[in-house]
Amino acid sequence: MTRTSPAATPLGDGFHVYDTTLRDGAQREGITYSATDKLAVARLLDGLGVGFIEGGWPGALPKDTEFFARAAAGELELRHAVLVAFGATRKAGVAVQEDQQVRALLDSQAPVVTLVAKSDRRHIERALRTDLAENCAMVRDTVRYLVSEGRRVFLDAEHFFDGYAHDPDCALRVLESAVDGGADVVVLCDTNGGQLPLKLAETVTEVMARTGFRVGIHCQDDTSCAVANTIAAVQAGASHVQCTANGYGERAGNADLFAVIGNLVTKLGMPVLPTDSTAELTRVSHALAEIANLAPDTHQAYVGASAFAHKAGLHASAIKVDPELYNHIDPVTVGNGMRVLVTEMAGRASLELKGRELGLDLTGQEAAVGSAVRRVKELEAKGWSFEAADASLELLLRAELSEVDEPPFTLESYRVLLDHRPDGEVVSEATVKVHVGGERVIATAEGNGPVHALDAALRKALLPHLSWMDTVELADYKVRILTDHAGTDAVTRVLVESTDGEREWVTVGVHGNIVEASWLALCDALAHKALRVRQVAAGG
Amino acid sequence: MTRTSPAATPLGDGFHVYDTTLRDGAQREGITYSATDKLAVARLLDGLGVGFIEGGWPGALPKDTEFFARAAAGELELRHAVLVAFGATRKAGVAVQEDQQVRALLDSQAPVVTLVAKSDRRHIERALRTDLAENCAMVRDTVRYLVSEGRRVFLDAEHFFDGYAHDPDCALRVLESAVDGGADVVVLCDTNGGQLPLKLAETVTEVMARTGFRVGIHCQDDTSCAVANTIAAVQAGASHVQCTANGYGERAGNADLFAVIGNLVTKLGMPVLPTDSTAELTRVSHALAEIANLAPDTHQAYVGASAFAHKAGLHASAIKVDPELYNHIDPVTVGNGMRVLVTEMAGRASLELKGRELGLDLTGQEAAVGSAVRRVKELEAKGWSFEAADASLELLLRAELSEVDEPPFTLESYRVLLDHRPDGEVVSEATVKVHVGGERVIATAEGNGPVHALDAALRKALLPHLSWMDTVELADYKVRILTDHAGTDAVTRVLVESTDGEREWVTVGVHGNIVEASWLALCDALAHKALRVRQVAAGG
Repeated sequence: MTRTSPAATPLGDGFHVYDTTLRDGAQREGITYSATDKLAVARLLDGLGVGFIEGGWPGALPKDTEFFARAAAGELELRHAVLVAFGATRKAGVAVQEDQQVRALLDSQAPVVTLVAKSDRRHIERALRTDLAENCAMVRDTVRYLVSEGRRVFLDAEHFFDGYAHDPDCALRVLESAVDGGADVVVLCDTNGGQLPLKLAETVTEVMARTGFRVGIHCQDDTSCAVANTIAAVQAGASHVQCTANGYGERAGNADLFAVIGNLVTKLGMPVLPTDSTAELTRVSHALAEIANLAPDTHQAYVGASAFAHKAGLHASAIKVDPELYNHIDPVTVGNGMRVLVTEMAGRASLELKGRELGLDLTGQEAAVGSAVRRVKELEAKGWSFEAADASLELLLRAELSEVDEPPFTLESYRVLLDHRPDGEVVSEATVKVHVGGERVIATAEGNGPVHALDAALRKALLPHLSWMDTVELADYKVRILTDHAGTDAVTRVLVESTDGEREWVTVGVHGNIVEASWLALCDALAHKALRVRQVAAGG
Repeated sequence: MTRTSPAATPLGDGFHVYDTTLRDGAQREGITYSATDKLAVARLLDGLGVGFIEGGWPGALPKDTEFFARAAAGELELRHAVLVAFGATRKAGVAVQEDQQVRALLDSQAPVVTLVAKSDRRHIERALRTDLAENCAMVRDTVRYLVSEGRRVFLDAEHFFDGYAHDPDCALRVLESAVDGGADVVVLCDTNGGQLPLKLAETVTEVMARTGFRVGIHCQDDTSCAVANTIAAVQAGASHVQCTANGYGERAGNADLFAVIGNLVTKLGMPVLPTDSTAELTRVSHALAEIANLAPDTHQAYVGASAFAHKAGLHASAIKVDPELYNHIDPVTVGNGMRVLVTEMAGRASLELKGRELGLDLTGQEAAVGSAVRRVKELEAKGWSFEAADASLELLLRAELSEVDEPPFTLESYRVLLDHRPDGEVVSEATVKVHVGGERVIATAEGNGPVHALDAALRKALLPHLSWMDTVELADYKVRILTDHAGTDAVTRVLVESTDGEREWVTVGVHGNIVEASWLALCDALAHKALRVRQVAAGG
């Protein structure tokens, strides 16, 4: 086990940005993270510099158990964040040492545990079917046991605001039991999401005055006030905010991590992230949407593609002269951009930055960069997205710099045949005709589906000519249908993640036909591998 | 011209629900209303019972001029709402009677005019290039003239909060000029959307104390606090709220009308709509999304399809017994419903709840429910997900209850051919062989991609035999590749949303082959429609 406090931000352990995308966010209808997805999410959040990452509920969900096991086995190295396991207290009438679920929390090896407990008398009596005394004992015992085992413990007081309104003393007793056991943050949860900021802030103030405890806040968006409620709680003294990326969560969702951070940093002047991380908000938000396989919300505050887009109208020239009069903050602060002045400057700057990241020296390459910016804009207008497809972007940049050698092969044609036979069997067969190493090669293969068959046929054709071909595998494959509201036909975007056992790289393809889109992404994947092979050969 | 105050709600003219979907909402990227769309939007909003409908900017936008002309010609009969024209004050240095744009406001025949005016000194000087005195004269003259012509006038004080923070006296002078001219509401606009509730409420309180004016509020969502800011302003004394349907608007959007009304009615106990209208919120929200040609936001507070959806899991039985413990309001209040999502953790309780929701009586059907639970678990282990696919789940439940008649057609075989030709063109062609209405039918069609071609061929085959076939359209199509599925080959999950112009329904298909997965979802979609057709026939 490692540290229990986040690595330094200017506010240190004094203020917690606590992310629960992997647990509460996963409750959103339509999200199903695999353990591998979870590791990728955690890496992005850590890179952003959040303090705590709640990874899931080990013991309750097999995928979460797997996530913690793989994290503990070294698959997740955190620079900023501390990993948190979420779980329940011991069951009523069971000794804490013998509770299987509590055991799973320890087994997860997460240095911090957040325990959820009921704090509304009605839930204790009607849902849990126990009484306040036993509920408090469950909380106290479990916290104390986990602390004695070296864990830092936070308490999520479920349904706190409704419970406090109904029976304040009961709600406070639950908090006291946790602190008595050794919990050092009590998180007030608006589980049903019915609060409004004014009243919620009053309750936070009152609870802090009556208990002196360190208070955290967890809001749901059922009144469309989750972000405002979170901020109001901070203004009332809460120093621990629980959020989810893009507000993912059950029902109307949770408080959006990016809007909360945006507000804390730019409106309240609270440096809650490591220096310069704020400029990563937009990128990380979009990458997390990609992993969740959800379209980014274009109108999301701070990070949405339209968040600083102005329908020019009458004020275009005024906006151009005085953009600060028309934007609540400088969009660059959060890594976003204003979209009226589709400035080549902005595009140029970000491409140059990206180029540096990819190890391409673009200084003094004015014309090539300008042309690359135009090409990217042109492709993005057609549905391409390079945000998650660095390998395709690198190929595009190198092509503009005339640095790409000829591709490893060229296509003459391919054909895919799909048969659902009368006996119910479904077969896919693909034939490719390619030119490679000076020869024309024809190969046919079968596969589970059209893309698999095409991939297999291509491999068969190339393997005798490209020795590295059998090291490359398709690691992941994502499809998004982009429906255009202009009423024209849908376009399909495919992201392919490839691996050669040492590195992974992502490529993109877009087309009206899903198979052709996949083909384009596959070709980029192989071109990228060929490029690296040549680079190694040149260096060796 | 008709009345200038809204038809009776319990709060009468004392509180204004003012909708600007047709003007500020139309600023949203992607929305383009025709004049006919605008009339349809206005009718829906009036049916809901909002007090004021801002129809647009006559004189500035031809479509808006047309909208007001058609409304005045009798195409729009309003029962509750008053129609409002939006416009600017006279230009600097022009007499108000000679200002063309002011003339257009009168010509619109709208009984109420909302004038926008700058209230931030920096905007007056840098964007408008005039001085405070002339700006105030422009406001006073224009209001006075419109009032003398029998109009009721509201003032939208643009950039008010930023302006007030920068130079409070200047901002107040603008409000005073308007009231001096005869305006009876001054609307404080957070035009750049940078406010947070606490500070905004302080400003509203201060302005009201210093002026005694009737104050309105207009918020943008750039901090994700538009709804909270609107509510905070009302709690501080504002008695006129400007909102847009579904929060449509420029950048991150405006305060969502439905969330604001939901909060005012259910949280603050303010009867701002005519009796019983609140139950129309969900229907009207979805209908307005339809007219805007945007997918409804499933996670929208109060009215979203997921707003009261619970991933039941462990708590299904508790939710079943005590739904009020898990919902912040009774969803029926706003015309919505609770949904229990059948997930991997599904049990008997959640299926029974789901059955009730779908109108299926499962009482006393122990064996069928048990077998349905097993079937759902079995399918979900293979990658199916019924969370978002109610129509497929209903078919599954009915099959277990032996309530399904024979399917509308049966498949013999299909074949899809995909060709990437040497000239680069990609073509897809599908042939289906089906049995329908006692006949064997073979049909072939082309499409943009394999699924499109298959769908087209199936339609061609079925249309002569199933009269309802041409009402069914594919509304949305989602693809998810499930990679680390038990380590075997990837599996594809397809969700298809279909519509017959009245209802939407979602079906699911899963297979190793994406085309077959799509085929399964398409077949369920048609089976579901056939079921409804039979139900209507049986009921009629």
